[in-house]
Amino acid sequence: MQHIPDERDLRNLLLTISYDGRQFHGWQIQQNAYTVQEAFQTALTKIIGEGFDLKGCSRTDTGVHANMYCISLKTTHPIPPERLKAALNRWLPLSVAVNDCREVGTDFHARYSCKSKEYIYKIWNSEVRSPFLEGYALHYRYPLDEKLLNDASQAYVGRHDFTSFCTLDNREQGDLTRTVKAFSVTREGDMVIMRVEADGFLYNMVRIMVGTLLRVAQGKFRPDQIPEIIESRSRSCAGPTAQACGLYLNKVNY
Amino acid sequence: MQHIPDERDLRNLLLTISYDGRQFHGWQIQQNAYTVQEAFQTALTKIIGEGFDLKGCSRTDTGVHANMYCISLKTTHPIPPERLKAALNRWLPLSVAVNDCREVGTDFHARYSCKSKEYIYKIWNSEVRSPFLEGYALHYRYPLDEKLLNDASQAYVGRHDFTSFCTLDNREQGDLTRTVKAFSVTREGDMVIMRVEADGFLYNMVRIMVGTLLRVAQGKFRPDQIPEIIESRSRSCAGPTAQACGLYLNKVNY
Repeated sequence: MQHIPDERDLRNLLLTISYDGRQFHGWQIQQNAYTVQEAFQTALTKIIGEGFDLKGCSRTDTGVHANMYCISLKTTHPIPPERLKAALNRWLPLSVAVNDCREVGTDFHARYSCKSKEYIYKIWNSEVRSPFLEGYALHYRYPLDEKLLNDASQAYVGRHDFTSFCTLDNREQGDLTRTVKAFSVTREGDMVIMRVEADGFLYNMVRIMVGTLLRVAQGKFRPDQIPEIIESRSRSCAGPTAQACGLYLNKVNY
Repeated sequence: MQHIPDERDLRNLLLTISYDGRQFHGWQIQQNAYTVQEAFQTALTKIIGEGFDLKGCSRTDTGVHANMYCISLKTTHPIPPERLKAALNRWLPLSVAVNDCREVGTDFHARYSCKSKEYIYKIWNSEVRSPFLEGYALHYRYPLDEKLLNDASQAYVGRHDFTSFCTLDNREQGDLTRTVKAFSVTREGDMVIMRVEADGFLYNMVRIMVGTLLRVAQGKFRPDQIPEIIESRSRSCAGPTAQACGLYLNKVNY
């Protein structure tokens, strides 16, 4: 029996995935670069044919990783979620995995239904690079006082206009106010981990926050200078944009 | 002033390194494959010229990693250890790093002076593969009871003839008795880690020990069957050789 699609059959599936960002130019499909969305389009076309709609929970930059990333998939195809998950894990490149696939309401949207997201930024803080962390962490060879940086980073927490922490392009318009719910800097051996949760993130926001904290570590900014930098609403007052390789989208909350 | 080598100038340096084994066909130099020793020969020739002697602490197989591996380097070149370390880290491929370099007595030998070594074997025990662990851990999707395996593995501990756990080739001759000092199976989330310390290891010994424990997990061997398998002194009685990718030389004790 052939399946004839009908508006009443429209389903919405939430895919929870992880990916190694080294190979990908972020999520969103592009003309001349390989992206996570393209990997899914290709695999889904093989599994359920044409006629589906994919929405990712955020843009991510080239080289940024995801421990957790969410996609909503609208389709009329009747494939059971568990079978779709297994088939995708066979068809997708080894650098992407589908960890969960479930039915959600048709009004759910991976991006707009999101309440908050958490990113982590990994810094390998050792004189010597690690052969296992090329592309997976920033290598920073000078001393880092994680307690000092953790204290300084608390100035990020709260509702602020984060213009100073945003690369302005045509994507960022309107209100640049976001609420940072938590920021922490911790150490596990030679690995320093910065963790930030917010209701939304501007373009390059986490990487500029990290780059600014590294300026504090270098003594180029005072630890108590971050409120001034936020106040200035000027990108040039903040530190540089830290490399993409240390950044991981870690959690998406709905 | 030109440096004229003299027997009295002979130095012995201990290099402590780590490497990502995916790129390498083990330590030992080979005609048609890239090895860790070749990477060092090439880098050292650029830094101190010809005329040095390198000894690795063990052969390792293709794809096996090292969190810690030791090399003794005999040379008459007067380069200070810290300068040699920095120069090697610039000249070596990103998949190898020198973590320490120090002067040792001329009778020290990276392999023969070794008192014991520790290997770990990483198993990603989840239904879904991890994009970050391709080549870095065995993916095992079925349930693993780490407590059951830890109990079963205690039969490995002690002084035994490990013929059953050795791939016989022309390298392994004479006494196949080794002393396993400790064996443990633990879990951190979805990662199961097997850890073994011994005074020496036969060819493929850890990988066959792991493969045998996986047979116990599958119910193909009883947990109390390991002593019989050791007793049999027959390779065919043990389980298969587990993949190289999960294996890491973790510690070398002198």
